[in-house]
Amino acid sequence: MRREELQSADPALFAELAAAVEVGELALVTADGTPRVIPLNFAALGETVYFHGALAGEKHDLCRDGGAPCSFAMTRPYSMIPSYWTAPRYACPATHFFKSVEIRGRCDLVAEPAEKAAALQALMEKYQPEGAFDPITPEDPVYAKALAGVGVFRVRGAWTGKVKFGVNETPARRRHWAAKLRERGAPRDLETALEIEKTLEDTP
Amino acid sequence: MRREELQSADPALFAELAAAVEVGELALVTADGTPRVIPLNFAALGETVYFHGALAGEKHDLCRDGGAPCSFAMTRPYSMIPSYWTAPRYACPATHFFKSVEIRGRCDLVAEPAEKAAALQALMEKYQPEGAFDPITPEDPVYAKALAGVGVFRVRGAWTGKVKFGVNETPARRRHWAAKLRERGAPRDLETALEIEKTLEDTP
Repeated sequence: MRREELQSADPALFAELAAAVEVGELALVTADGTPRVIPLNFAALGETVYFHGALAGEKHDLCRDGGAPCSFAMTRPYSMIPSYWTAPRYACPATHFFKSVEIRGRCDLVAEPAEKAAALQALMEKYQPEGAFDPITPEDPVYAKALAGVGVFRVRGAWTGKVKFGVNETPARRRHWAAKLRERGAPRDLETALEIEKTLEDTP
Repeated sequence: MRREELQSADPALFAELAAAVEVGELALVTADGTPRVIPLNFAALGETVYFHGALAGEKHDLCRDGGAPCSFAMTRPYSMIPSYWTAPRYACPATHFFKSVEIRGRCDLVAEPAEKAAALQALMEKYQPEGAFDPITPEDPVYAKALAGVGVFRVRGAWTGKVKFGVNETPARRRHWAAKLRERGAPRDLETALEIEKTLEDTP
């Protein structure tokens, strides 16, 4: 089989996706052994992922008392590469470039108010980078009730990254795609061209 | 607990997200009982979701021979509503509007060449709507080898939809947010304002 994706364990990839990906996806196994996948806003502190939710319900019940096995995905889609940039009529070369990280580990509930506050502060800094809110600290009486009433969940585990920018293709084809992307200029096309060009720097 | 999201079983929601969401997320339970979540390009025919992949590897091995229990999420994020549109300094009102669908059911492999071809054709029509490829049919000898060599996976099951556009908030607050979104005019803000305004039509 052709190697279409490069595995990556680069900590910069984790940090990039944790900052850039708006909605992560948490998979859990329910009591009957079937999976669920739940879209979530999230923020990372180091390589620990945090999100918040209710202190009741299925997610809470699965993750309380020591946590639950989980998988958490952060996916950053880049440009579609249409088939006709590669072959005039044959559909199969159509492809989609992306970066992704999957964490496999456990999801549990954070008990400590300081860690809950730090996680919620990180969420605010990610999704409201312009600020305009009082920092969330366990000492601020304004936040005491909210901190006690919200569930803060934590995902920790081992992760694997993938990046797909055509490394299995010839340098000539990659250069052609990068040129086509710059010419098309749709959203993400320039970033995708830059990522393809990075793969060419590594090519002798 | 406040009702922040509206459940929806509207078939139009399923169709909208199947067309608009670029990357879906498939959760499976692996042999050791832990979950995995896998980002995928996908297309729907009716309410059956299709994607393609290798005829080898973990996903294939889990889904062959009658299929595997799965969950599949399609998530469409809308605008972030910053906290300061609701409260001057208090972070907690910050929220994120979205639409999502989760299918819970089984994922199996498609064996019939006609269904495989129809699924791949649907994928091409979704991701390359400008066309410029020969239609994928089981009769076209150009596609025979590709059709035989690719795995086409199928997700079928029951689904639930969620839409979150502030229905638990007062009409005055929703009108304020819609006006702020129109004023800010960032990507997705106009669509989000329109969705909020739809919730107001339903309010007496």
